[in-house]
Amino acid sequence: MGIEKNSHDTSALLQRREEHFAGSYLFYENPVEIVKGEGIWLFDRQGKRYLDCYNNVASVGHCHPKVVEALCKQAATLNTHTRYLSEHIINYSEHLASTMPSGLELCLYSCTGTEANELAMRMARKITGNFGVIIMAHSYHGNSTLINELSSCLYPPHECPDYVAMVEPPNTFRGNHRSDQGLSDSDLAQNYARLIDSAIQKLNDAGHGVAAFICDAIFDSQGALNAPEDYFKRVYEKIRAAGGVCIADEVQPGFGRLGEHMWGFQHYHVLPDIVTLGKPMGDGHPVSGVVTSKEIADNFFQKAFYFNTFGGNPVAAAVAEAVLSIIEEEKLQQNAYDVGLYLLERLNELADQHPLIGHIHGRGLFLGVELIKNRQTLEPAHQEARDIAENMKNEGILIGSTGRFGNVIKIRPPLVFSKENADLLIEKLDKLLTDISLKMNTG
Amino acid sequence: MGIEKNSHDTSALLQRREEHFAGSYLFYENPVEIVKGEGIWLFDRQGKRYLDCYNNVASVGHCHPKVVEALCKQAATLNTHTRYLSEHIINYSEHLASTMPSGLELCLYSCTGTEANELAMRMARKITGNFGVIIMAHSYHGNSTLINELSSCLYPPHECPDYVAMVEPPNTFRGNHRSDQGLSDSDLAQNYARLIDSAIQKLNDAGHGVAAFICDAIFDSQGALNAPEDYFKRVYEKIRAAGGVCIADEVQPGFGRLGEHMWGFQHYHVLPDIVTLGKPMGDGHPVSGVVTSKEIADNFFQKAFYFNTFGGNPVAAAVAEAVLSIIEEEKLQQNAYDVGLYLLERLNELADQHPLIGHIHGRGLFLGVELIKNRQTLEPAHQEARDIAENMKNEGILIGSTGRFGNVIKIRPPLVFSKENADLLIEKLDKLLTDISLKMNTG
Repeated sequence: MGIEKNSHDTSALLQRREEHFAGSYLFYENPVEIVKGEGIWLFDRQGKRYLDCYNNVASVGHCHPKVVEALCKQAATLNTHTRYLSEHIINYSEHLASTMPSGLELCLYSCTGTEANELAMRMARKITGNFGVIIMAHSYHGNSTLINELSSCLYPPHECPDYVAMVEPPNTFRGNHRSDQGLSDSDLAQNYARLIDSAIQKLNDAGHGVAAFICDAIFDSQGALNAPEDYFKRVYEKIRAAGGVCIADEVQPGFGRLGEHMWGFQHYHVLPDIVTLGKPMGDGHPVSGVVTSKEIADNFFQKAFYFNTFGGNPVAAAVAEAVLSIIEEEKLQQNAYDVGLYLLERLNELADQHPLIGHIHGRGLFLGVELIKNRQTLEPAHQEARDIAENMKNEGILIGSTGRFGNVIKIRPPLVFSKENADLLIEKLDKLLTDISLKMNTG
Repeated sequence: MGIEKNSHDTSALLQRREEHFAGSYLFYENPVEIVKGEGIWLFDRQGKRYLDCYNNVASVGHCHPKVVEALCKQAATLNTHTRYLSEHIINYSEHLASTMPSGLELCLYSCTGTEANELAMRMARKITGNFGVIIMAHSYHGNSTLINELSSCLYPPHECPDYVAMVEPPNTFRGNHRSDQGLSDSDLAQNYARLIDSAIQKLNDAGHGVAAFICDAIFDSQGALNAPEDYFKRVYEKIRAAGGVCIADEVQPGFGRLGEHMWGFQHYHVLPDIVTLGKPMGDGHPVSGVVTSKEIADNFFQKAFYFNTFGGNPVAAAVAEAVLSIIEEEKLQQNAYDVGLYLLERLNELADQHPLIGHIHGRGLFLGVELIKNRQTLEPAHQEARDIAENMKNEGILIGSTGRFGNVIKIRPPLVFSKENADLLIEKLDKLLTDISLKMNTG
């Protein structure tokens, strides 16, 4: 009865959706209607619960009571904008700046990661006077006109605009320079960083110069890569020598997800010129931002105007403050480190048993399980990754796939993920991988 | 004591703001610290209340209890994204589409007016294959790289990019074609619409063609103009003949503000191809959107990808639904019409007494009081407009100035503005205008 009602409701809902709502495809071949969230769990209309291993937005857990409380209290009191003096955004800015390395102290606000990257790019171009941008191949940074053009996963390489130069990400598992070639980490860093030279050359030859290099420290859309330790240091040096600024897109890796540090770039011991923030910043509330140096902010505002109606309003500030406080109080960065390490170990155990797993990428609570069909050719197991995501959903686990070949299972749960949650994930993943290998052996 | 504390607190707060927050200048020479909002009123830290005659975001009133309730309820239940099936955004889309003329039925969501205009422009370019855009002189549409370039109030005319053509807005008070020249409304429409021809020519000559014409039906940044009745009809015809689409930016005029209709463009009996929404849509919650035809949406999604993490999420949908329902239940569009008409009459009475007032622009609850120093030369009274805004704040009324010369007092209150509120505004405005004329006569 429940299921009949569901199948009826779902198709009717899908029909209605088709008629008046456009703009995002649904996850899964058989989409799931989610109606409730609580901590690490999401619930569908029938009350079935799903372990959330995918959503980084609800980073402190779905519907965290303290976030909801801060949101409601402020929304019931005042919600204007930053052209009236307000202590909320000042308090938050002080708090946010205190989590950054020295030299990154000025905060600006917007509502989405796209807007934060837009603002960062406007700053980079204004202060350098250059126009060109260096990005990673298969990158994603957002959905506006400019940021789409900086998202190379959205277009074939020959459609790359002439002011954009893209370089191969430092994929030491399947790139041109690999760990299995006997190269040292330092050699790998040097080889991948060297690609920046021709990117700079291309932009200089085209007369654009280098305004910025933009990259996220976890290489989200490339499959959660770990770069060689010195990679970013070498890249930043080259970018700065060419007159550009270095933008760390922390929309994905930021706010403690990678475990060791609050910010992804810190792992690589570099100091970006501009840091952009988004997704988990408000546990689902649309708030994002840019943090930069006083020098860059002053330089920019001498030449430009920026105002964002909703950016940094009292409600956004109260929510963001609640989220940052929860990350600290509940030691979620430490949890991301501990549980991330535990999960990595358990995934590596799985990899020993299942030849379909080629490599485990990533750190903290952002891991990528790369599936391959063949250990020599590294042929991507794209369909298998899709099937696993679909079947995991049926098993009560929400997960996705990513990477240039769509063959990397993306594990990026809310930071309240526990070792017990990890065990459940491993158990189900083990089962599905076993099913696949049985099918392959008999098929 | 209270005031001493204030002056100390304010300067300390300003100092702290300077150190860690960048990105928006404060209103007023002596900024006001707002700590509470309720209906039409805002309150500062000392408990002084201000009649809000400026803020169109909190359109249904500051902290409307039903909006807060919808926000809190949904935020405590679920806040994910539109890649899981959710009825909230479907319900809202049906409701929103029902307020639009037939032919505008597909809704897409984003978080800010900038993002809505970005998406509209991406659609226009993708479906037309053209690149050029026709805008008004002294326009403002948002803060991203592209939308900044479509915001001609931000740069001198010689910095206009070559893919942008700007035309003079139909200012029948001080433009090249004026009501006082004995021209009929139809002649004025024709004369101003004719400017589109050379804009099209410019874009065609540059090889860009015409992707879009974008304009808001109240000419917000140009001083709340009323265009001749046939103006938009004639413009739309020309744009379409040139292969472009017509975008109505309803971020300012939309959601009943202009009184006669729910949408600003309806006054001019035109059907835009794409409508963009923002500011008042969520009473301060960051939600915005695009409404277009099924044909355009289908065409766009055959060629492009769009996803906005926070856009149309369950909380945004619940809040937007609450706002739209309140507008209907509390008959706020009718109120905007009635009180707008009353206010217009009373402002015209003021204009009879104060030669500083040159003209009252606008309709509904979006009125512009243009101040001039001389009835022959129409010399703009810019400083007087600034002084009035500053002094009105001291009198307990929040108001701003706008227009190309900054000489138009912008009256754009929440839609719950009453005739009593209008009387208070008129009383204070009368007093300040009298003070100014006394000063002028004795000075």
